[in-house]
Amino acid sequence: MTLKPSRRSGVDPFLAMDVLAAANRLKSAGHPVISMAVGQPSEPAPLAVREAAKTALDAGDIGYTDALGRAELRRAIARHYGERHNIDVDPARVAVTTGSSAGFNLAFLALFNPGDRVAIARPGYPAYRAVMALLGIEVVEIPVGAIGTLDAAHVAAAHRVKKLDGVLTANPANPTGAGLGRDAFAELVRYCRDNAIALISDEIYHGLTYGGGETSALDIDDGATIINSFSKYCCMTGWRIGWMVLPEALVRPVERIQQSLFISAPDISQRAAVEAFGARDELEAVKRRYAANRALLAEALPAAGLPLAAPMDGAFYAWCDISKYSSDSMAFSRRMLEEIHVAATPGVDFDPVDGRHTMRFSYAGSTADMVEAARRIGVWLERGG
Amino acid sequence: MTLKPSRRSGVDPFLAMDVLAAANRLKSAGHPVISMAVGQPSEPAPLAVREAAKTALDAGDIGYTDALGRAELRRAIARHYGERHNIDVDPARVAVTTGSSAGFNLAFLALFNPGDRVAIARPGYPAYRAVMALLGIEVVEIPVGAIGTLDAAHVAAAHRVKKLDGVLTANPANPTGAGLGRDAFAELVRYCRDNAIALISDEIYHGLTYGGGETSALDIDDGATIINSFSKYCCMTGWRIGWMVLPEALVRPVERIQQSLFISAPDISQRAAVEAFGARDELEAVKRRYAANRALLAEALPAAGLPLAAPMDGAFYAWCDISKYSSDSMAFSRRMLEEIHVAATPGVDFDPVDGRHTMRFSYAGSTADMVEAARRIGVWLERGG
Repeated sequence: MTLKPSRRSGVDPFLAMDVLAAANRLKSAGHPVISMAVGQPSEPAPLAVREAAKTALDAGDIGYTDALGRAELRRAIARHYGERHNIDVDPARVAVTTGSSAGFNLAFLALFNPGDRVAIARPGYPAYRAVMALLGIEVVEIPVGAIGTLDAAHVAAAHRVKKLDGVLTANPANPTGAGLGRDAFAELVRYCRDNAIALISDEIYHGLTYGGGETSALDIDDGATIINSFSKYCCMTGWRIGWMVLPEALVRPVERIQQSLFISAPDISQRAAVEAFGARDELEAVKRRYAANRALLAEALPAAGLPLAAPMDGAFYAWCDISKYSSDSMAFSRRMLEEIHVAATPGVDFDPVDGRHTMRFSYAGSTADMVEAARRIGVWLERGG
Repeated sequence: MTLKPSRRSGVDPFLAMDVLAAANRLKSAGHPVISMAVGQPSEPAPLAVREAAKTALDAGDIGYTDALGRAELRRAIARHYGERHNIDVDPARVAVTTGSSAGFNLAFLALFNPGDRVAIARPGYPAYRAVMALLGIEVVEIPVGAIGTLDAAHVAAAHRVKKLDGVLTANPANPTGAGLGRDAFAELVRYCRDNAIALISDEIYHGLTYGGGETSALDIDDGATIINSFSKYCCMTGWRIGWMVLPEALVRPVERIQQSLFISAPDISQRAAVEAFGARDELEAVKRRYAANRALLAEALPAAGLPLAAPMDGAFYAWCDISKYSSDSMAFSRRMLEEIHVAATPGVDFDPVDGRHTMRFSYAGSTADMVEAARRIGVWLERGG
C-alpha cells in the first residue's frame, strides 16, 4: 500500500527546531556556530538539581509516578506561589507535566472541543497554533504589532466580532519578549473571567523580567489555567519538566488525560526539580548574565542594522526588524547560518502573515557568544547581508 | 465564571494508574503493599545506562535535541534491527519519543483524521482507546476472547462489516500476555498491507517472550509503523524514552508534529538509552526472573482460585478469571488492595464490556513478592475474597 499521512499532519513545521537541526549539522561538521535560534539557557541546571538526579540514579527506583506527579514536587510548586506571589495554592491543584509542551496539550484537550475558538497573539509561539490545529481547535490570531503581546482591548475587539471560547497568552511573551504591567495584565484576565472565556496563562518566562515584577493570572482569577516550566528560569530545557496550576474543575479531567497520554512526567526530572526552588542564588547569577546580554544586544543589534520591533521587557529574546535587508526572513535565516554561522529564528515561524520582515534572536547564551554574534552580523550586514 | 471541562475530557480513567495512586497512598502510610498493578520492572535500569546519565549530568549540557532525537541513539536503534531481526533500517526512519505513549499520540495524529476507524483488541491497553477518542478517531474494539490478541481473521471480519482505516496491535499483548506465532502474525500484517489498512505494531514487549521468537512487523511490511520503548525489557519506565520506526512518508509529518507537541524526548534519557543495547547480559538476567515468576504464578494463581483467562506467552502479565468470586473486578481490586495489600488492575480497565470477571496481575516484581502475593491471595480467597 502507499501510505498517506493524515490531513492534519500537514501542520507547519516549528522552524526554530529546523534551524536547530541545521545548526547541529554544521556544528558536527566543525563550524563555529553560535546558536541564538532556540530559547535555551547555555548554563546547566543548578548543581543541587543535578545532585538530586544522581541520588535518584544511585537509588535506581526510577519508575512511573502518580499521573499528576510526585507529592513532594507538587507541594514544592504550591509553596513557590506562596513565597513568590503570596498566593495560597492547594498542591492538589498542581499537575506536573512533561515540560510546558505537555501542559498545553493537556489544557487544550481538557478545555476545548473541536471547533472551539481560541485567541492567541500574532506573533506568538508557533506550537500554540500547530497543536490547536492538530486538535481541531479554531485558532484566532490577533495581530499585536509593536506592543508585542495581547491586551484586553485586543481580546475584547475579537470577542465582539465573534465569540471566543478561550484565550492563551504569555507574559512576558515569546517571540517578542514584550510584557504587560500588572494593571494591564489584570484587565486582560478580568475581561476573560467576566466574559466566560477560558484563560490559559503561559508563565514560562516568569523569573525573567528586567524591569517590574511579575503577575500570575492566579492572583487575579483562581479560575485561570496556569502553565509553567522549569525549562527557562531553572535552565532545565532538556529535562522536559513543567507544571500546571488548575481550576478545581479541571483537576480530574487533566489527571485522566495525563494517565493515557503521558502516564507521568520523567521521574528523574521530577525528583531533581524539587531542588530547583532552593537554587535561587545560582539562578539569579544566570539571570544577571541575561540582563548583561540584553543590555549589550539592545545597543548592538540596532547598531548592526537590525532595529528592535518590540520592547525587550522579559524572557531572553530580541525581536528585530530585518526589512532593510530582506523581505524573506526564512532565506535571511538560512543565509546568516551558512555564511556567518549565526543561527536565529525567522519571524515567519511566529507570524505567518507579517513575519517575513522579522527575526528572533535568543540571548540565553554566553555573553562572549553575544559579542561575537553581534560582530559577525554587523560585518555581514555592512556587506549587504 | 464556572469553568466547564471539554466534552472530550470525559475519557475513561486509566484505572491501573488510579490503583497505583491508591497503592502509593497506602505505602506512604506504612502498609506492606505488593504492587502488581502497573507493568513496571522492579529492577533499576542497567548500570551502564545509569552511568551514562551521570556523565551527562556532569557535562551539564542537557538541552533540547533534534526533534527526531539524537543521531547516535537513532543509529543505535537502527543497528538493533540489524542485529536482532536481520532487518536493514535507515536511522533516518527512526524517531525517538517520550516513551511509547508519545509514539502512539504521534502515530495517531500522523496517520488518522477525525472519524477514521481504527481496530484494536478487546481486552487491550486502555490508553489506545482513550487517546484515539481524544483525537476524534473511531475506535473499533474487536473482542478476542481466550486467544487474547488480534489475528487476521478478526481484522478481516471487522473490515468486511465496515471499512477500517487502521489496525493497532500488540504482540505479545497487554493485558493478556498472549502472542501470535510468526506465521499468524505475518498473515495479520499482510492482510492489512493488502487491504490498505495502516498498521501500527506495538512491539513494546519484544524481548519478553518465553516460548518462540519475536517478529517485528517491519520484517513483513516496510510500510508498517513500529512503536517500541526502553520501558519494559530495558527497565526504564520512569525515564520516558521510546522510539518509532516510520514508513518514509511519515518521517517528516511525525517530525513536524513532534516539534510542536513534544519538542524532543528527555535528553538525559536519550543519552543513557544508547547504552541499553550493550546491557544484554544484565537484562537477560532480569528476564530469567520474570520467567521464574511466570512459572510460579502459572501454578499458584489457579491453585489460589484464579484460573488463567489467556496464555502467558509473553510480557509480564497474568490475565485471570475471577468469576468464581466476583462479577465486579473494580470492587474486587479495591477490596484486595485494602484487605491484603495486593495491588492489581481490574479487567474493566482493559475491557469495558467483559472485564468485570477478570484481573491483570503484573509479575515484573521480585520473586519474593510474587510468592507472598500468591500466599495472601490464596488465604484471602479461601475466606471468600
